[in-house]
Amino acid sequence: MSPAPIELTPIGRVESPLTDPGDAPKQGDEGAPDAWLVFEPAVLDGLDGIRPGDDILVLTWLDRAERDVLRVHPRGDVSRPPEGVFNTRSQHRPNPIGLHRVTVVSVDDRRVRVRSLEALDGTPIVDVKPVLSGDPDER
Amino acid sequence: MSPAPIELTPIGRVESPLTDPGDAPKQGDEGAPDAWLVFEPAVLDGLDGIRPGDDILVLTWLDRAERDVLRVHPRGDVSRPPEGVFNTRSQHRPNPIGLHRVTVVSVDDRRVRVRSLEALDGTPIVDVKPVLSGDPDER
Repeated sequence: MSPAPIELTPIGRVESPLTDPGDAPKQGDEGAPDAWLVFEPAVLDGLDGIRPGDDILVLTWLDRAERDVLRVHPRGDVSRPPEGVFNTRSQHRPNPIGLHRVTVVSVDDRRVRVRSLEALDGTPIVDVKPVLSGDPDER
Repeated sequence: MSPAPIELTPIGRVESPLTDPGDAPKQGDEGAPDAWLVFEPAVLDGLDGIRPGDDILVLTWLDRAERDVLRVHPRGDVSRPPEGVFNTRSQHRPNPIGLHRVTVVSVDDRRVRVRSLEALDGTPIVDVKPVLSGDPDER
């Protein structure tokens, strides 16, 4: 029996100078530009407390990924043997959720500016979480 | 205009002694038990290369969370002022995706045993990713 599907609702979109998948770095710290996270008006209360300097995790929906791929060459490097997609950060996977750790530069009403995001312009945002302190007493 | 919804397909489920939400710790390193990740037969090739000792990120769908909550008291502590859910790790949020960093204990055909997972028994799994090395040359 196949499991029942789950429905996500985008909470916003990425606005970025990155428009060509061929230009996108594989990870944010590999030369990605700053970008805006533009949120839906309905979820703005959820951003309360996010401030410049915060480290956040942005979860996106990689809408240009392939969902029927289970093995890839890591980092697209054909000299490396194929591995299971769950052992790589390939965008291609059954549920292409992107996970991006970024620093907040500024917060402007419904937009949050972040440093070094490798997601393409127009990518849907599905969640934002704070980076957890390693010390439970600081959570 | 509301954005178009996105459909996720569960790739497996958590098997855990944790069945009562009231017993679940807030984070894995706050006393959570070991658990099995049980994968759908159709995605097993995607696990190729995952080995005991690996640190992985498990993304789940927190199916017992509320989706219409935008402000919460952090960690449910009413002595702390409410904050936006995107500035907390509350399970309650528009798209309740759980993010769990765990260590693989063993791999057994379609099951992966992991250390200290706070997700409840039966929670759908939607993605698995390796923890990235901080050094791009090791990725």
